[in-house]
Amino acid sequence: MIIREMTRQASLDLLNRTHLGRLACARANQPYIAPVFFAYHHDSLYCASTIGQKIEWMRENPLVALEVDEIDSAQRWESVIVSGRYEELANTPSTQNMRELAWSLLQQASALWWEPAYVETILGGEKRAMAPVYFRIRISGITGHHAGKEE
Amino acid sequence: MIIREMTRQASLDLLNRTHLGRLACARANQPYIAPVFFAYHHDSLYCASTIGQKIEWMRENPLVALEVDEIDSAQRWESVIVSGRYEELANTPSTQNMRELAWSLLQQASALWWEPAYVETILGGEKRAMAPVYFRIRISGITGHHAGKEE
Repeated sequence: MIIREMTRQASLDLLNRTHLGRLACARANQPYIAPVFFAYHHDSLYCASTIGQKIEWMRENPLVALEVDEIDSAQRWESVIVSGRYEELANTPSTQNMRELAWSLLQQASALWWEPAYVETILGGEKRAMAPVYFRIRISGITGHHAGKEE
Repeated sequence: MIIREMTRQASLDLLNRTHLGRLACARANQPYIAPVFFAYHHDSLYCASTIGQKIEWMRENPLVALEVDEIDSAQRWESVIVSGRYEELANTPSTQNMRELAWSLLQQASALWWEPAYVETILGGEKRAMAPVYFRIRISGITGHHAGKEE
């Protein structure tokens, strides 16, 4: 197996055609990680999430990493890692356009995947309906690797 | 959709039957994330990796998180997040048994997935054959969530 760096364009292509990633954030150098649904647009990744540990941690420390991959086997895969900054799209008049952009991009990404309105969560026996938090990751760096046989 | 906490046993079951995870580490509060192949055994996750950014970062800060999931759709998934500490199984006589355990567990996990000896990596035009670094993640916490329809 040979592992090679991907070009920036090949890395962006993977970000464009993939909508499920894993997002890592950190507090006091303890990392945390969770799957996220996202849509790439103009050097940012747009997401929505119910509130929880990752949103609380990213509000405190906006430095994040997001990984996407396509894995056929241990010998044949592509993986792209983005580093960037969390930017919350608050529910205020000044960010209304950005929230509508995020909603529209996520709708386009997949009508099947995306539940725009509410999710019911039962945690610790307590039942809550939760409105999503919209945010974007402003990309500061992209690295990609792919593995395959010798060409 | 309803999101519920998984029991510890259900979380361990997912760690037992899954061997591909995403591992997050952090340096100076900047997270990094990469896919890893692992095998669960006695409150630890055993891994092997070529040397690179994640190994260098984990040597500096051993606090890590690892996420595994089974995702059928946005409405039906399981996700388990482990927090723990990186522990390198150095190539020394005192850790030889642990390295052999790691090798054996990873072999059992999947003969197809696992390439025990060498990987050739071409980075920046330089070609290197790389021996794997064996390590384990000592689990300090496990949380699991699953989503599904109302039961």
